[in-house]
Amino acid sequence: MKPLSRRNLLGSAGLITGAGLLVASAAGPLLSKEEREKPRGWTYHRLEPAAVADEAARLYRDGGCMYGVFTSIVGALGRMVGEPFASFPCRMMQYGAGGTGGFGSLCGALNGGAAVIGLFEPNKERQTQLIGELGSWYETTTLPIYRPTAADAIDVPKSVAGSVLCHVSVSHWCKVSGCKVADKQRKERCSRLTADTAMKTVELLNRNLLPSPAFVGLTAETQSCLSCHGKQDLQDTEGKMDCKACHQFAKKHP
Amino acid sequence: MKPLSRRNLLGSAGLITGAGLLVASAAGPLLSKEEREKPRGWTYHRLEPAAVADEAARLYRDGGCMYGVFTSIVGALGRMVGEPFASFPCRMMQYGAGGTGGFGSLCGALNGGAAVIGLFEPNKERQTQLIGELGSWYETTTLPIYRPTAADAIDVPKSVAGSVLCHVSVSHWCKVSGCKVADKQRKERCSRLTADTAMKTVELLNRNLLPSPAFVGLTAETQSCLSCHGKQDLQDTEGKMDCKACHQFAKKHP
Repeated sequence: MKPLSRRNLLGSAGLITGAGLLVASAAGPLLSKEEREKPRGWTYHRLEPAAVADEAARLYRDGGCMYGVFTSIVGALGRMVGEPFASFPCRMMQYGAGGTGGFGSLCGALNGGAAVIGLFEPNKERQTQLIGELGSWYETTTLPIYRPTAADAIDVPKSVAGSVLCHVSVSHWCKVSGCKVADKQRKERCSRLTADTAMKTVELLNRNLLPSPAFVGLTAETQSCLSCHGKQDLQDTEGKMDCKACHQFAKKHP
Repeated sequence: MKPLSRRNLLGSAGLITGAGLLVASAAGPLLSKEEREKPRGWTYHRLEPAAVADEAARLYRDGGCMYGVFTSIVGALGRMVGEPFASFPCRMMQYGAGGTGGFGSLCGALNGGAAVIGLFEPNKERQTQLIGELGSWYETTTLPIYRPTAADAIDVPKSVAGSVLCHVSVSHWCKVSGCKVADKQRKERCSRLTADTAMKTVELLNRNLLPSPAFVGLTAETQSCLSCHGKQDLQDTEGKMDCKACHQFAKKHP
C-alpha cells in the first residue's frame, strides 16, 4: 500500500487545486530566488519575545537548550497558524543539548536560534548577519538576564560567556560562580540562558520583518583579527568566534 | 480561511481513521517512553552509505555542509517512503555552513549528522553515544576519504582535523595543504568531508537498527582528561571535544 502522504491525500481527495497550492503555483514564476528557495508555508509571524522566553525556560527542563529555543518559537507559531509548524518534529532538536550530544561544542541555545533563523531567512547574507549578531550578543552579554516570576526563584550568578562554545561558556560560569556542572544552579543558569537566547532570536526575527532592517556587526576585536586572517589578506581562518577564548597573544603579535 | 493542514484535510476527507493513524492510535498505550516521544512516522530505514555519500557531495555545492549531510539522508528517505520526509524543509539546514552562519563553531557536516541522529534516535543515552562516536571519528580520522568517480577529479590534500570545530578543522587543513580558505581545493575538501560524514552517519544509523548495537567510546586521551574534569571529580567542564585543540599543558599538569 502506498504510504499515506499529504500529496496522496490531496490527490485522492480532489484537493489538488486547494487554496494553498493555487497561491504557490500561481505565484511561482513571479517569486524572487530567495522566495523560490523558501520552503512553502514556513513564514515567520511576529511573536511576543517575553512570552517566548517563559516558554523556552519551561521547555528547557523537558528537552534541553536547543529544544527549548527552537520549540518555544516553532511551537508558538504552530499554536498561532497551525501547519506546517504544528507537525514539525521538534523533538529532534534535543540533540543540541550540552553543545551537541554533550560534546561541548556550539551552545545548543545558539544552535536552536540559528536553526530558527535558517528556517525563516533564506537570503544567505541576511541569514549570516542575523546568526552573527546572535552569536556576538551571546559572547559579550552578561547572562542570564531572564528571571522567572515565581516567588521562590533562586538567585543565579551571571557571567560573560566570552565564547559561543558550550564548553567555554559553562566552564567559565563554573569558575565565576564556584558551582559544579551538575549543580542545580548550573541547570537553572542554562534554563534562563535558553530563555534569553529565545527572546533575542525573536527580537532579531521581528526586526527582520522590517523592509530594511539595520544589522549590528561583529565586535571590534573580532573584526580586527579578521582584517588580517579573514578573506582579504592571510585567508587562513574560517570563523568569527571571539579569538581570545582560545588564543593568547604574545606581545610581538602585530 | 483556515490554513490547509494535514489534520484539516484528513478530517474533511473523512480519512481520520486512515491506516497510518489507526496504527498510531491503537499502538499508543503499548509504546515505550522513547517510542511515545519519537515523532510519528519519523522512522529510519536502512540506506546505502556510498550512494548517500555521492548525493551529499553534490548537495554541498547547493547549500553547504550541514545541508549536504542532512538532505542526502532525509531526501533519500523521502524518495524511498514519501512523507513525512518528503516535505521536511531541508533548506533550513543551510544555516550550519561554515560552523553555523560562518561563525566557525561546530563543523556543519557534524551538525547535520547529529541532527539526523536526533531525528531518529529518541533514547538520550543512545543518541549521545552515536553523536559522540561521530564526533570522535571526525576528530581522529585522516579526511577526506571520499573521492568522486569523475576522471577529472582534482587531488585534495588530507589532514586529521583534531577538533569538531570548523575553525580549527579548516585552519589546520590550510596549514597542512598550504591552501587558502577561498581556494577551490578547500571547497572540494569540505565537499568530500561532507560526503564522508554523511556516509559515517548512515553507517552508524544502519548499525543502530541492530537490537544491541556495540558503541565505540571516546578517545583514550579525552577519557583521561574527563576522568578528573568530568562528572566524577572536579565537575568543572562540559564536553568531550579533543582538549589538545585549544589547551597546551605544562609539564606540571597531573
